[in-house]
Formats: sequence, structure tokens, C-alpha cells
Amino acid sequence: MTERLPLCPISRTAMILGSRWTAQIIRELLDHGPRRFQDFSDALEGIAPTMLSNRLKMLEESGVVERQIYETHPPRAEYKLTDKGRKMSGIIGAMRDWGAKYG
Amino acid sequence: MTERLPLCPISRTAMILGSRWTAQIIRELLDHGPRRFQDFSDALEGIAPTMLSNRLKMLEESGVVERQIYETHPPRAEYKLTDKGRKMSGIIGAMRDWGAKYG
Repeated sequence: MTERLPLCPISRTAMILGSRWTAQIIRELLDHGPRRFQDFSDALEGIAPTMLSNRLKMLEESGVVERQIYETHPPRAEYKLTDKGRKMSGIIGAMRDWGAKYG
Repeated sequence: MTERLPLCPISRTAMILGSRWTAQIIRELLDHGPRRFQDFSDALEGIAPTMLSNRLKMLEESGVVERQIYETHPPRAEYKLTDKGRKMSGIIGAMRDWGAKYG
């Protein structure tokens, strides 16, 4: 293998999935479509609001999730997967299968 | 670790892959078979010995990797995937594909 490790595809993917809660946030969006902040709070038992906010921002910066304002008075936002994010379904599915059998 | 055991299969898998370097360590073992500590040090550019030691211990405790003594004078150990660990190839492959395309 000639590629330098920090640039290897697995490292790049691991950098996104390698933070606690990110895989579960993506799973929520894959299973249920666009979600509001409160939906994640309700579904991901034990996640603190500051942690959730931090993770959503990180996923936005990685181009996996996008934030959309769907109402302006009062302003309401929802989060959805980008095309790049939807393409993570194979990884999340493989994680789910492995975890169900061996985790 | 006093953290509550996450109950969903994706969380359990993410706890293993969700630490920096673990996915790359598993990839090394999938690609090359049993490896010695030094082999990982050489292949994973930038990993500190204490970090590598910590990650290998974590993967052993998770039942993904096992340590085997293959020579007693002087003692030499190598690390190999358990059956449970080999079954992670689907996840690692999906991570590699996604990272190559979108990462």
C-alpha cells in the first residue's frame, strides 16, 4: 500500500463515524427522514443538548447532513442527509448486522 | 469504564470502531493476517506506542482481536482476528468504499 495513512479512505470514514453518537444520528435520519433537534433528543436517550449540537455541526461540516429552515415565523430548522450522507447506509447497515450478531 | 452499555446494535459497533485507529488496526489484520506490535507501528504512520498498546488491549477486551505467544525464548507475541473480528470485514469494506468515493 503506497498511500499515506492519514489520507486512506478508511481513516477518512472513521474520522466521521469515530465520534460517539454520529452513527446513531445518521441511523435516525436513514430510518425516519428529516428530523428536528428535538426529535434527536427524544430518540437518542442520554445525549446532552450541547453534545447533540456539536455532533450535528460536525456532520454538517463533513457534508453528511444539511440543516434546512422550513418555517421562518418562528424560525424552525430540520436536519436531513445529503446525497453523500445517504450513501452511508451500507456502512450503517453492516454495523447494525454485526452488532446484532456479535456486539 | 462505568459508561452504561448501549443497547442498540449500531451503538455497540460504534463503540468499537468509534475510537481513532481501531478501524485501521482491523484493516491491517484483514489485509495481512497475524501481525506483531512492530508491524502495526510501521504500518500505521503516526501512532504512538502507548496509543497502539491501548487500542490493541481494547480490541482484545471486545473479543475482536486475540494475542498469541508464538515463541517463548525470547517471548514473542502476535495479534490476530477472532472469528468475531473477521466478520467485521463487511463494515470495513463499506467504510473503504464510501471513503474512497466521498470521504
